[in-house]
Amino acid sequence: MNKVPQTLKGFRDFLPDVMVIRNYVKNILVEVFENFGFEPLETPTLEYSSTLMGKYGEEADKLVYSFTDNGGRQIGLRYDLTVPTAKVLAIYNQQIPLPFKRYQIQPVWRADNTQKGRYREVIQCDIDTFGSSSPITDAEIIAVIDSVLQKLNFQKFSIRINSRSVLYQILDSAGITDNQKSVLQTLDKYSKVGQGGVTKELKEKGLSAPTIITLLDCIRKAQPDSYLSQVFDLIKGFGVSESSFIFDPTIFRGLDYYTGPIFETYVEKPKIGSITGGGRYDNLISLLGGPNIPAVGTTIGLDRIVDCIMELNLLPNLPKTKTKVLVANFGPDTLDESIRLVSFLRNKSIPSSIYPDAEKLGKQFKYASDKDIPFVAVIGPDEVEKNLVTLKNMSTGDQKTISQKDLLVQLV
Amino acid sequence: MNKVPQTLKGFRDFLPDVMVIRNYVKNILVEVFENFGFEPLETPTLEYSSTLMGKYGEEADKLVYSFTDNGGRQIGLRYDLTVPTAKVLAIYNQQIPLPFKRYQIQPVWRADNTQKGRYREVIQCDIDTFGSSSPITDAEIIAVIDSVLQKLNFQKFSIRINSRSVLYQILDSAGITDNQKSVLQTLDKYSKVGQGGVTKELKEKGLSAPTIITLLDCIRKAQPDSYLSQVFDLIKGFGVSESSFIFDPTIFRGLDYYTGPIFETYVEKPKIGSITGGGRYDNLISLLGGPNIPAVGTTIGLDRIVDCIMELNLLPNLPKTKTKVLVANFGPDTLDESIRLVSFLRNKSIPSSIYPDAEKLGKQFKYASDKDIPFVAVIGPDEVEKNLVTLKNMSTGDQKTISQKDLLVQLV
Repeated sequence: MNKVPQTLKGFRDFLPDVMVIRNYVKNILVEVFENFGFEPLETPTLEYSSTLMGKYGEEADKLVYSFTDNGGRQIGLRYDLTVPTAKVLAIYNQQIPLPFKRYQIQPVWRADNTQKGRYREVIQCDIDTFGSSSPITDAEIIAVIDSVLQKLNFQKFSIRINSRSVLYQILDSAGITDNQKSVLQTLDKYSKVGQGGVTKELKEKGLSAPTIITLLDCIRKAQPDSYLSQVFDLIKGFGVSESSFIFDPTIFRGLDYYTGPIFETYVEKPKIGSITGGGRYDNLISLLGGPNIPAVGTTIGLDRIVDCIMELNLLPNLPKTKTKVLVANFGPDTLDESIRLVSFLRNKSIPSSIYPDAEKLGKQFKYASDKDIPFVAVIGPDEVEKNLVTLKNMSTGDQKTISQKDLLVQLV
Repeated sequence: MNKVPQTLKGFRDFLPDVMVIRNYVKNILVEVFENFGFEPLETPTLEYSSTLMGKYGEEADKLVYSFTDNGGRQIGLRYDLTVPTAKVLAIYNQQIPLPFKRYQIQPVWRADNTQKGRYREVIQCDIDTFGSSSPITDAEIIAVIDSVLQKLNFQKFSIRINSRSVLYQILDSAGITDNQKSVLQTLDKYSKVGQGGVTKELKEKGLSAPTIITLLDCIRKAQPDSYLSQVFDLIKGFGVSESSFIFDPTIFRGLDYYTGPIFETYVEKPKIGSITGGGRYDNLISLLGGPNIPAVGTTIGLDRIVDCIMELNLLPNLPKTKTKVLVANFGPDTLDESIRLVSFLRNKSIPSSIYPDAEKLGKQFKYASDKDIPFVAVIGPDEVEKNLVTLKNMSTGDQKTISQKDLLVQLV
């Protein structure tokens, strides 16, 4: 006997009970995205490595799954949805009217350490607006995040907003000119490790105590710049509650391509990291050889959202299956009628299955019960003779023998 | 300036106008699959190469995108959806009630020659039933294919059905014991190259003229075996028109894992190859180290279906965008009211956008027209004063200034 294969570490198979939850979340995302005027786009799984590399930062570049294909091309798996779409804008900008608002829901891959409980394949749900430098577009992204989380029944979340310009202003004021990125990476941990943790790490990175004190003071005094102030006003204009978002001068976001406002969303529980991340990136398309097209957007992480929803019990009462009726298989004598019945139900758009084997009825009922199929319809010789169907309601146990017409009334 | 990156050959970016069509097809597929009682499942993009290799046949194995990851593992990109799901059954069979009917819609990758106009990344839409040897399950797969193609407005298609056992019976009768697979591969081209083409190729493969004559005679006389005859009766039982399907003793299907009935669907036009392909594969799960679980199913190729639909003009009148209203940006003085209006429309689930920049109105109208957005709503100083909105119907050119309440009536 062969050895049973394994699924790769960091990758997952999704059985129907989990798919029901993932599809519920995905459908809400699509609904909100389209309600806000975003349109669908998809890009390939594989890209030239040269397209992907040098956009995210050195650390991230190492996490790109890359290899040489049979034709000798250096290629890699999609690491995010932002760079591939920026590529689309660089290539097809002549045929895309601007502003262009697109959503994209596709998996991305990261050859990351799985010991932190991270997945190597996750589904990102991105919205981005290309072709406008108006703060309306930044604010609208925040409004979408808020709408998505409200629709998913999240009670406590915080969209933290900062700007790269605020961060560099803080560094300037504190007189920090060396290793700026490294300092900001430490600062980014503020909400997790607090002032003590940040101080300790900055000391290890060689900053003097007075510099650190000045830096922390600058952070306390930091204010949104004028662009960010407009964004804040507009977010309120879109009807987002002030309890949903906050200015946080410590957040940095690792990726290299951001140029202006940056945003992340956190939930209090579970401790899971950010569930959204995004910002403005006005130079990425020209970096890819395209024209100057400003851009702003966010990723919403489907997998973390699903993990949160399950942990926080935010799910509505979703049926485990869409199948409404199992037509039992009573054996060859009544099979024709049973097949006609299942076809009749399907023609009426009532999702139905027929049990393929003439097993004992008890086994067939147990199968319906295991699969949470709400009704079982049986046609035995008695039913055939009278042209009736016996319908069992699996949750109440009620059973009645009725005409096909009455059956429809019960099911619709 | 950087060089604009390219999309890899055989891969495609899908802009919103094409995504609308792809999503239309995908939604119909999901609707039909669920109507027939199939449930969603997804598997990872990457698998151990050992899981993928040795299941499809030597030629196909060469087309698997495979590489060594950072951890030294030999891995590969999903080549089809059948083997990964068979893996799921081998691993999780204890927690999956049988029969198990699953659908799966995910991309697969093939490092194939692109010169034939083939794509290297395509979306397969699979349905399979696991855990039953009843011909009902084979027939049901055919009924799903028929239902999908009817719903997509296909007029002329032919689901060709054969069985591996019929093929080996034909070879036996013709006394062909050597290179059976190679002979069947030639036979498979019958519908494309005709009797002459097959004869020529078999001669080149070393078959004697008398053997070829006997073989062709056996094909002419071939009949469905008893299992296949039951399948045919059941297909009719499911209400499939006899003009939709046909017994074709020449089709073979290349993949190694098939064990019984096999089926393919062809359209007369365009000349595009099969748009579905499937069959019974009762040994695959045990080959993967799992228990003996019989299985039957089909792939429906989303990309070829979409190509056919566009070529044959089978599309209903799909709107190019879901966005119904563009709220114009009249400038800072009325921006608050315009933002309130777009938020109001979204709260009423009317997909809407606001133009982010205060460009000339003419440019904003042109944008709505380019994007096929059916209405533009304008709030200028006059409208603010009277608490009204001017609504322009972009297809008729009609324009009226009305209350917000009347606006809703126009749009819903």
